[in-house]
Amino acid sequence: MPSVPTHRAAFGARVRELRTARGWSQEEFAHRADLDRTYVSGVERGVRNPTLDVINHLAKALGVDVMEFFSR
Amino acid sequence: MPSVPTHRAAFGARVRELRTARGWSQEEFAHRADLDRTYVSGVERGVRNPTLDVINHLAKALGVDVMEFFSR
Repeated sequence: MPSVPTHRAAFGARVRELRTARGWSQEEFAHRADLDRTYVSGVERGVRNPTLDVINHLAKALGVDVMEFFSR
Repeated sequence: MPSVPTHRAAFGARVRELRTARGWSQEEFAHRADLDRTYVSGVERGVRNPTLDVINHLAKALGVDVMEFFSR
């Protein structure tokens, strides 16, 4: 299994953090974002490499600025 | 010609701003980032939809945190 790049792991962890802070399951978040639950799971685990469009879409679904994904 | 989404235009403008602040031509930046100049041009104009990996790569080439691309 290929290892997950650090920047993807960090991004995914932040998405998960923002999702769980809203009390949403992956399924609920996926539904709200109109994405597949397995895709959301892959993003959170860092195995997916989302595009800028998807990153923007995820931010909108979470109600945050994209910057929130990258701030420490 | 399809219109450029706002979030991509904003991202591209920020990349251009950071590049020109370093006094680099698109060609020099492309060389440093090991990307094609036309790709860099497309990113700056918002016609490209870079992945998280590419966004991370661009940030490294510019010597900034990814957050810098999205801060106002």
